[in-house]
Amino acid sequence: MNDGTVTTARPIASSLLERYRTVRAATEALVATLSAEDCVIQSMPDASPVKWHLGHTSWFFETFVLAPNLPRYTTPDPAYRMLFNSYYNAIGEKHPRPQRGLLSRPSLDDVRAYRAAIDEAMATLLRGSASGPIHALVELGFHHEQQHQELILTDLKHLLSCNPLKPAYAPRPRAARGGRPNALDWVEFDEGVAEIGHAEPGFAFDNETPRHRVYLGRRAIATRPVTNAEYDAFIADDGYRRPELWLSEGWDWVNANHIEGPLYWEPRNGERRAFTLNGVQPVLAAAPVCHVSLFEADAYARWAGARLPTEAEWEIAVDGLPVEGHFAEDAVFEPLPDARPTARLRQMFGDVWEWTQSAYAPYPGFRAAAGALGEYNGKFMCNQYVLRGGSCATPRSHIRASYRNFFPAAARWQFSGFRLARDL
Amino acid sequence: MNDGTVTTARPIASSLLERYRTVRAATEALVATLSAEDCVIQSMPDASPVKWHLGHTSWFFETFVLAPNLPRYTTPDPAYRMLFNSYYNAIGEKHPRPQRGLLSRPSLDDVRAYRAAIDEAMATLLRGSASGPIHALVELGFHHEQQHQELILTDLKHLLSCNPLKPAYAPRPRAARGGRPNALDWVEFDEGVAEIGHAEPGFAFDNETPRHRVYLGRRAIATRPVTNAEYDAFIADDGYRRPELWLSEGWDWVNANHIEGPLYWEPRNGERRAFTLNGVQPVLAAAPVCHVSLFEADAYARWAGARLPTEAEWEIAVDGLPVEGHFAEDAVFEPLPDARPTARLRQMFGDVWEWTQSAYAPYPGFRAAAGALGEYNGKFMCNQYVLRGGSCATPRSHIRASYRNFFPAAARWQFSGFRLARDL
Amino acid sequence: MNDGTVTTARPIASSLLERYRTVRAATEALVATLSAEDCVIQSMPDASPVKWHLGHTSWFFETFVLAPNLPRYTTPDPAYRMLFNSYYNAIGEKHPRPQRGLLSRPSLDDVRAYRAAIDEAMATLLRGSASGPIHALVELGFHHEQQHQELILTDLKHLLSCNPLKPAYAPRPRAARGGRPNALDWVEFDEGVAEIGHAEPGFAFDNETPRHRVYLGRRAIATRPVTNAEYDAFIADDGYRRPELWLSEGWDWVNANHIEGPLYWEPRNGERRAFTLNGVQPVLAAAPVCHVSLFEADAYARWAGARLPTEAEWEIAVDGLPVEGHFAEDAVFEPLPDARPTARLRQMFGDVWEWTQSAYAPYPGFRAAAGALGEYNGKFMCNQYVLRGGSCATPRSHIRASYRNFFPAAARWQFSGFRLARDL
Amino acid sequence: MNDGTVTTARPIASSLLERYRTVRAATEALVATLSAEDCVIQSMPDASPVKWHLGHTSWFFETFVLAPNLPRYTTPDPAYRMLFNSYYNAIGEKHPRPQRGLLSRPSLDDVRAYRAAIDEAMATLLRGSASGPIHALVELGFHHEQQHQELILTDLKHLLSCNPLKPAYAPRPRAARGGRPNALDWVEFDEGVAEIGHAEPGFAFDNETPRHRVYLGRRAIATRPVTNAEYDAFIADDGYRRPELWLSEGWDWVNANHIEGPLYWEPRNGERRAFTLNGVQPVLAAAPVCHVSLFEADAYARWAGARLPTEAEWEIAVDGLPVEGHFAEDAVFEPLPDARPTARLRQMFGDVWEWTQSAYAPYPGFRAAAGALGEYNGKFMCNQYVLRGGSCATPRSHIRASYRNFFPAAARWQFSGFRLARDL
Repeated sequence: MNDGTVTTARPIASSLLERYRTVRAATEALVATLSAEDCVIQSMPDASPVKWHLGHTSWFFETFVLAPNLPRYTTPDPAYRMLFNSYYNAIGEKHPRPQRGLLSRPSLDDVRAYRAAIDEAMATLLRGSASGPIHALVELGFHHEQQHQELILTDLKHLLSCNPLKPAYAPRPRAARGGRPNALDWVEFDEGVAEIGHAEPGFAFDNETPRHRVYLGRRAIATRPVTNAEYDAFIADDGYRRPELWLSEGWDWVNANHIEGPLYWEPRNGERRAFTLNGVQPVLAAAPVCHVSLFEADAYARWAGARLPTEAEWEIAVDGLPVEGHFAEDAVFEPLPDARPTARLRQMFGDVWEWTQSAYAPYPGFRAAAGALGEYNGKFMCNQYVLRGGSCATPRSHIRASYRNFFPAAARWQFSGFRLARDL
Repeated sequence: MNDGTVTTARPIASSLLERYRTVRAATEALVATLSAEDCVIQSMPDASPVKWHLGHTSWFFETFVLAPNLPRYTTPDPAYRMLFNSYYNAIGEKHPRPQRGLLSRPSLDDVRAYRAAIDEAMATLLRGSASGPIHALVELGFHHEQQHQELILTDLKHLLSCNPLKPAYAPRPRAARGGRPNALDWVEFDEGVAEIGHAEPGFAFDNETPRHRVYLGRRAIATRPVTNAEYDAFIADDGYRRPELWLSEGWDWVNANHIEGPLYWEPRNGERRAFTLNGVQPVLAAAPVCHVSLFEADAYARWAGARLPTEAEWEIAVDGLPVEGHFAEDAVFEPLPDARPTARLRQMFGDVWEWTQSAYAPYPGFRAAAGALGEYNGKFMCNQYVLRGGSCATPRSHIRASYRNFFPAAARWQFSGFRLARDL
Repeated sequence: MNDGTVTTARPIASSLLERYRTVRAATEALVATLSAEDCVIQSMPDASPVKWHLGHTSWFFETFVLAPNLPRYTTPDPAYRMLFNSYYNAIGEKHPRPQRGLLSRPSLDDVRAYRAAIDEAMATLLRGSASGPIHALVELGFHHEQQHQELILTDLKHLLSCNPLKPAYAPRPRAARGGRPNALDWVEFDEGVAEIGHAEPGFAFDNETPRHRVYLGRRAIATRPVTNAEYDAFIADDGYRRPELWLSEGWDWVNANHIEGPLYWEPRNGERRAFTLNGVQPVLAAAPVCHVSLFEADAYARWAGARLPTEAEWEIAVDGLPVEGHFAEDAVFEPLPDARPTARLRQMFGDVWEWTQSAYAPYPGFRAAAGALGEYNGKFMCNQYVLRGGSCATPRSHIRASYRNFFPAAARWQFSGFRLARDL
Repeated sequence: MNDGTVTTARPIASSLLERYRTVRAATEALVATLSAEDCVIQSMPDASPVKWHLGHTSWFFETFVLAPNLPRYTTPDPAYRMLFNSYYNAIGEKHPRPQRGLLSRPSLDDVRAYRAAIDEAMATLLRGSASGPIHALVELGFHHEQQHQELILTDLKHLLSCNPLKPAYAPRPRAARGGRPNALDWVEFDEGVAEIGHAEPGFAFDNETPRHRVYLGRRAIATRPVTNAEYDAFIADDGYRRPELWLSEGWDWVNANHIEGPLYWEPRNGERRAFTLNGVQPVLAAAPVCHVSLFEADAYARWAGARLPTEAEWEIAVDGLPVEGHFAEDAVFEPLPDARPTARLRQMFGDVWEWTQSAYAPYPGFRAAAGALGEYNGKFMCNQYVLRGGSCATPRSHIRASYRNFFPAAARWQFSGFRLARDL
């Protein structure tokens, strides 16, 4: 982190503690209505129990901030060092990821007590004269915690979807309405050298750096993401049964897993319905399609005579645009239509993460941080693809133009949609 | 059940309700100290969450007793018919067994409310003039519930063992002490025709019938089960590394799973220690070894120049013996030494289930019950082996001489031990 | 073998050599029309390449007869000791079974040269004054070779069936005709003690001994095996879609593997057709059904209101009957109808192996041979079921009343059929 | 191909036939010493039997050249259309890839006859006045056949390596000698815009087009590939046991597969030895390491404080260099040292394919060909990585600067090595 992450300039200690409390409170608000049972189960190896997220985010502050920096700090429970280690080999032993759901102890109450103890120690630390490097680590902890806020929602959604009772996490708000479909429009971009990557000031993860030049050809970017109605037309046109539309690995994936539509969509029986965090609901025709894999996004694009944008194309397109869209704070927990005219780029941020065609790779000159935090991003740069822009489950303050999210091509349990591009 | 299970003669309704309450209360006592989190997790496909056991045993009374017999009975929740169906195809859809651990809802409180509603309806039914066939079904429900009491303990033990914190279900009682080892002795039996199988009166499962004749040769049966100290000597003599001692499938199992000792034994590091329901504890040298597979029992017997008894040999040996040993009611939850002299057969009941060499098969003339209850036992008569005598996790009133338990040869999470036999 | 196998009394050396040559020539005749390519492929882990069978049977004589008994014997190739060891841990390393199909070298010609070298050494040995124990080993080698003659046919059938060209091993002989269906009749047997197991003189495998008493109830045995026409009626009556007919493990097997009929039967499209060693041919209505698993045999029996016989019932029924039926020497390579009236037991031998309901287990008092040959049978006595009577792929001189074949419940690539029994 | 592949300008028909015969003869020369048994086995799903390669390359000419263009052409066997279809969904049914090794029929002789029939028909076609588009297809067929020449060698090497006899494909030539190790040097490159991709004239696959601009930073490229001696030092420095050196997925792969060195290297026992197409041989210290995965190449680079080049960096570095190195025509079949001074770039071509850090992706503006041939390259652009430069198993005339080979990150059975790069 010391090397690899660009940090805020001169944060003020008092406000840092305030921000700490805000971030931590946001996590707890998300889980306030959940039972201990909701929080303990792991529904698949890719997902983690909510309780584990609660513990791991505290472990992060403990391991990287408190233990090295707060004099005489002692952990509430030494066993947590292993239990809540996600993937940091440099920290030592880890409880195996697929077995995170086997832990009825520590209880949810124990983990809440652990959070409280960490919060208290952090308050002690942040009230003191913490140095700039410590501030950078705390800032990293904020963004780390926000990533897990999103995962709490997506992992919980997957868990509840496995339950035949199809329980809702929250009632559907009135905001979730159909809206009118907007025509798809395109914005054109010229050929030439451009720059992408994080530019100071402000926080960024190491994988967003260094800022560097790229050469891009002439292209057009769609003004809005592909909608549920459009995606349904792809299905109706036998999109899932035509091998010529698919990457070879995608075609194998479709057939091996009997894929017939986005994750959480129910088989058509009259009106389209899907499982959401608000229970089973009608699919909103004008909202961006989500819970699709890169394979599906790519096949749709081929069907539509277009392609997915690269991450560089996406980042340059978004240059100067405000961070607008539906985020976790809106508490809708599903992407919504954007009713405004689409002559300009809309919904680049929020609503759905947008698959790009870019494999997740180091930027030229990338250097991972020294030590354990160097494992944060760099070691995953293989067989994953970049998504951009955040989703309805992402905290608004977490996202920015240079932000790179990444998942394997077959992953679908994030709020992942896509937008088209084409060569000119 | 109507055909396949021998029933008690003329039970009295009032006492049946009393017995119902006793059985149900015993289940609830077992789980009284557990949290909702302890009760919701499924640690492996073979095991079920405690909450599922609580629901399923109530479902059993609802499905087979209340629904067909109590006028105007309505279920508290129609979804439970599918959620808590274990394996009865004739009842309809079942929630898939490996996904029993994905159900944070209904909550433990919901399931307790379900139990209470069933209890109330059962009280209404049993206070009335219920017929003989209904009594037989209720009696079956008692024994069914007792089977799940044992499974609650064995499934919970497995779950807790997966937790690196190695939590205890209960403190170790003073009764769990080493004891002195008894010499192994043998009791001899003559050749000839004998009878096995359930003889009326009293309850039995359909698989214990009909009583029938068998022909047995001269043989001797060991006076006590093989002990931990003896089994440790087998390990020390490279028992797990000598293929000539093992069944072919057992040898493959040892190597594929890197088996080096009984389930729950820790690698030797000075004193032998093992995970128990009382936490990690020293292994009692003079107690029966348990949590071994049929493969291990068979290999040990070959190493010892002996063999496992058949189930007929076991049942005839136990003829006339009292049901003595350590049972669930003793609340020790692990097998204990029996300090009495071993010139006679000891610990045939309780402490550990004893593997026999008998494949689980229908007795000559066996007929499964008509309808769904015919699925209780008969359809499992393939690729499983019979165990006899009950264990420290079995309710004392559940066991009898003709009782046939059965598990696949590789199963180890029950309290399974063994006793030697040999030809004369 | 020295202990475990009952041997012929005083064979004469010259005739032993003659018999040796007869047995070996029969193997070579079976493969005379095959190409090297036909002989090298392994179509599934359960099957072996023909070339491997040719090598292994020679290895058997080399390892157990020549090496210990022929002075100054040296092997043609020391590598074969490992390459052609099937499962004898006591002999040392083995080439892994699933990788038998990776051996393009030694070539088929090399293996034939190996056979010739073994034959020459065996001739030297058998022309001399070989002792009784050696004769017993040679006799065992004959029967071992005959077992592999049958496996050559069944493994080759499986291989050819995997080829979309559906090539024939041999043209269909005129003998393979429909025949008229015979009515099913029953032969009744009384209750009481009887004896089963091998009685001297004559060769038997160790698993057929010792002869011992059993107690059997009143029962009836069907006069002929279940036919293709009858089995087809079971399918037409939705036999594969009714869980109440199946063992639990069988039902899982049907669904996991999408089983809809016997192995090699093609989906019905007008006339029933199946792949045979004579290519794809019409299914003979009056011939015994074959290539069914124990699960299917058991389900059919339940559908028919009957059950499978035990191996003891089968062996006692066959007492005194001649070994009549279609065998490998008839070169038809599929079961044929028996047109004779069925008031008496027919086709107990030949045509199809008959599944029994008996788990493969040691007879009371069974002792495996000392040393490597003790691995021949005993270590497989777990999770397998006994079949009786031989098939159209079995050499006639290989079979006898006490012969016990054994396979897992799901195995279907042998010529396995079944016959009904019922309690009286 | 019509759209996506750049074709030669005006080939002359007579020379095209000559070239056809040369390419086809090269294939047959490679397999001349192999037995039918060597040619029929499939050693893993990734590899194909030699016989299948022989058939498939003929199928390619038949399907894409003869069938649409030669009047009255009829196939020697209609079944081959399905049997020898590799992955062209648009052509119709395919024999499943993992079952290519189950085909003893058609025999090797049958496939040779098929080749001869295709050759004859091709001669008829090429002697006539074939049009430019046909010439382009034939040219594509040449390069396709050459790709399979390389696969014949790599697949055969894998097969022979599975044989405990470790047979040699060919004797080791005298050329395979140790050589002296050269010091590693670096060549520096400046920042700026450059062009990569195929530039006419001459053949290229569609994935090498269109030529386009890229922006590259300052960097240095190593003058030669990493050698066996250097790689051995990485192993000696615990390279395979230090997670901080590995991509996360690579670390999992190492542990799940117990990887301890390059494929085909034997465990060290004094001198390093490895299986080669010349049998087990000493590892040449100064030769490029090969049969390593991208994971291993990446880990080595991290250990060495460097990185892998991108494919653009590689292609620009090679600009203007002659195609020099050891190729299939040299008949050594393993990479050799290059004894010349390394101040300049050496061995960019031949010896070993060089892993790049570039995910295999479409070039900007890439369009796959219409129809079945559009499946040649484009549909594999996911979860694979680009290798450059050809190997000792590649025909010399097959390779060029813009050539893009691609394999999954874990693949090792190709002759894959790597070269270092670093940022300046």
